[in-house]
Amino acid sequence: MEAISIGLLGLGTVGTGVVTIIENHQDKLIHQIGCPVKVKKILVKDLNKARSVELDAKKLTTDPEEIINDPDIDVVIEVMGGIDETKNYIIKALKNRKHVVTANKDLMAVHGSELLTLASEHDCDLFYEASVGGGIPLLRSLSDGLASDRITKMMGIVNGTTNFILTKMNKNGSAYEDVLREAQALGYAEADPTSDVEGLDAARKMAILATLGFSMKIDLDDVKAEGITRVTEEDLQYGRQLGYTMKLIGVAEREGDKVSVSVQPTLLTDTHPLAAVHDEFNAVYVYGEAVGETMFYGPGAGSLPTATAVVSDLVAVMKNMRLGVTGKSAVAPQFKKQLKAADEIFSKYFLRLHVKDEVGVFANITSVFSEHHVSFEKILQMPLKNKDLAEIVLVTHQASQQDYEDILVKLRDLQAVQTIESSYRVEGSASA
Amino acid sequence: MEAISIGLLGLGTVGTGVVTIIENHQDKLIHQIGCPVKVKKILVKDLNKARSVELDAKKLTTDPEEIINDPDIDVVIEVMGGIDETKNYIIKALKNRKHVVTANKDLMAVHGSELLTLASEHDCDLFYEASVGGGIPLLRSLSDGLASDRITKMMGIVNGTTNFILTKMNKNGSAYEDVLREAQALGYAEADPTSDVEGLDAARKMAILATLGFSMKIDLDDVKAEGITRVTEEDLQYGRQLGYTMKLIGVAEREGDKVSVSVQPTLLTDTHPLAAVHDEFNAVYVYGEAVGETMFYGPGAGSLPTATAVVSDLVAVMKNMRLGVTGKSAVAPQFKKQLKAADEIFSKYFLRLHVKDEVGVFANITSVFSEHHVSFEKILQMPLKNKDLAEIVLVTHQASQQDYEDILVKLRDLQAVQTIESSYRVEGSASA
Repeated sequence: MEAISIGLLGLGTVGTGVVTIIENHQDKLIHQIGCPVKVKKILVKDLNKARSVELDAKKLTTDPEEIINDPDIDVVIEVMGGIDETKNYIIKALKNRKHVVTANKDLMAVHGSELLTLASEHDCDLFYEASVGGGIPLLRSLSDGLASDRITKMMGIVNGTTNFILTKMNKNGSAYEDVLREAQALGYAEADPTSDVEGLDAARKMAILATLGFSMKIDLDDVKAEGITRVTEEDLQYGRQLGYTMKLIGVAEREGDKVSVSVQPTLLTDTHPLAAVHDEFNAVYVYGEAVGETMFYGPGAGSLPTATAVVSDLVAVMKNMRLGVTGKSAVAPQFKKQLKAADEIFSKYFLRLHVKDEVGVFANITSVFSEHHVSFEKILQMPLKNKDLAEIVLVTHQASQQDYEDILVKLRDLQAVQTIESSYRVEGSASA
Repeated sequence: MEAISIGLLGLGTVGTGVVTIIENHQDKLIHQIGCPVKVKKILVKDLNKARSVELDAKKLTTDPEEIINDPDIDVVIEVMGGIDETKNYIIKALKNRKHVVTANKDLMAVHGSELLTLASEHDCDLFYEASVGGGIPLLRSLSDGLASDRITKMMGIVNGTTNFILTKMNKNGSAYEDVLREAQALGYAEADPTSDVEGLDAARKMAILATLGFSMKIDLDDVKAEGITRVTEEDLQYGRQLGYTMKLIGVAEREGDKVSVSVQPTLLTDTHPLAAVHDEFNAVYVYGEAVGETMFYGPGAGSLPTATAVVSDLVAVMKNMRLGVTGKSAVAPQFKKQLKAADEIFSKYFLRLHVKDEVGVFANITSVFSEHHVSFEKILQMPLKNKDLAEIVLVTHQASQQDYEDILVKLRDLQAVQTIESSYRVEGSASA
């Protein structure tokens, strides 16, 4: 039986892992697919660099055209990263009817729908399991599930750096800046941590998940994203006192034909399973109408887990090739995007205020909430030391985002309100 | 393109769900597989019973031979339950070169290896995703992962009934018998709960997981199984006080070529993610050499989740049929079974004793542990009310099962030891 030929774009740690797995598991791969798999060509920057994997020097090239224009190559694996240049290579590969496996979340979040449409048009597969949740078989479970179920909600921790930081802050009572430095020293955070700590990385992954799970073209701009830089030790302390754990949570929800997607620091009820996801781990809840709730947990990054996910995509592509059903599994979004308005998105909220310690202030504040028909689940009030101020912590019942934002505007206008110290989404029922 | 023909054995709630999903998702199924799927014949007990799904009466039969001997039928879906009779049907179906999908854990735990071998010999697929963890795509993730990884450990909560009971006991401080009655009233426990509460159901699932994950024929007798009937409120209280949550945990471990499999009530460190798996939910941790730790969580039972899992197996079978690679994915165990001896299995242990409140007793007890080189992580001692007795609670560091059992024998012989009140495995590091 004829072998399937692979071309790799990139030979960093993930690419090296992919080559190693394909070499070491050749027999198992033949068993699954029914034919051998060969790596024909690999795009590298430097032909002479020492490699940790044994390779025929003739397989290496610095010219991408030798891969994307080679009629013998059936599948292109993209593990080089980057957006614009990489996108052009993938477009050319798809137009040349090559299937593509990529680990590139930046690319997929920005150009995913366009590339998936192009792949569909050319009967090609485009798989990207490794782009979200590293080694967790999340996208595959979503697509398999979609064949016989309808997904209504996805909620999870999809960024390892911020989860590491929040876990350490919560455990050691340390300040954000100190933990960030520790994370950078350990390699869990980059020198410029902006993309992680501002929630952008998580927003990209939620855009990818929502696009797949809801079959709607969800752009990065559609994701209301907020990072963890303003989370303080006081907030974590109050959270603990009230029975909550702070996590950076991505939520994608569908009601009828309308969806909302967000990434926000969120106070989770302690008993919620996501509250027990620590350190750099990722976990995503998926709610399906038939299956109910399932959750997938694992390493969100790392070269071996990522390489494993890439190879599992490769196996799926090769099976589809032999079935003659490529271009069907990872289809372009089928439904028109309909986003919920702010008055259609409901949540509980945690709010911490500093107010003047005077008669009638508390009544003034609560009346603002009453005007919007928002009631409270928890209330704490205590005097602040050495000041004529009191601290008020409120946890609301369900309120629309619109009402809550209007309430914040009105509270800021109240003469008695000194500062709004912090405000977070709250997830999980009080009784759970 | 020619349609694939299905025969169903059984039309209870799961069978009805399977028929409904195949009808409602015909287009999606064609997209994935490349040809239509038709339900040709269904084995029922009563032809005239009212059904919640619309069916051509000619499709129903009370004669199993009309399915297992019909040369037109490609795949047999077994959702009738039972062991001996069902096994004979499946054997005949496989010998007639029909692929089989089953949701039957009792059957697979006892005869799985034999049936998988037979399937292999006849180039047939035999899939059983729904037999463990209901709607959680666990077995598929294990087999997919096995293509490029080596699984070293599986640990989890695989029985919903006992998890429901332990959750309620822990939350409400209720006694085992009271919660069992509540579980029976809610339908979470059967009238005869023995199989669940004695750990047998969990042991079956662990035998299935270990057989697949380690590719070794693990029999039910190889699983050291213990249920939750002797778990008391006092044990849960002490657990909480020391930072542990009680769960019925199945563990399958491999070191080198040797394995051990057990189901035991276990005190888990509170911060362990499995400690946050509540009520009737299931969750399984899988440790792979390449991917690290992943966890799968979801409903362990229920007719719709189970039907969804059956259909996902059916899709996999049909893909393999069209690929010409059936009989390769769910292979019979490849390695010779090698079980660890009791002196090769290590764990921490929790031990609660009532001892005479006399000088030197504590030293006597600890010297028994020292003789076996077992040291302590935690020690609690307090007087018991109205008695000349004291209660001692010990949590050991890692000890071999052999050493620990020897210690228990010696402690029982000590004159100062009145009773050994309870003893449990402990999982999770103290620092986590």
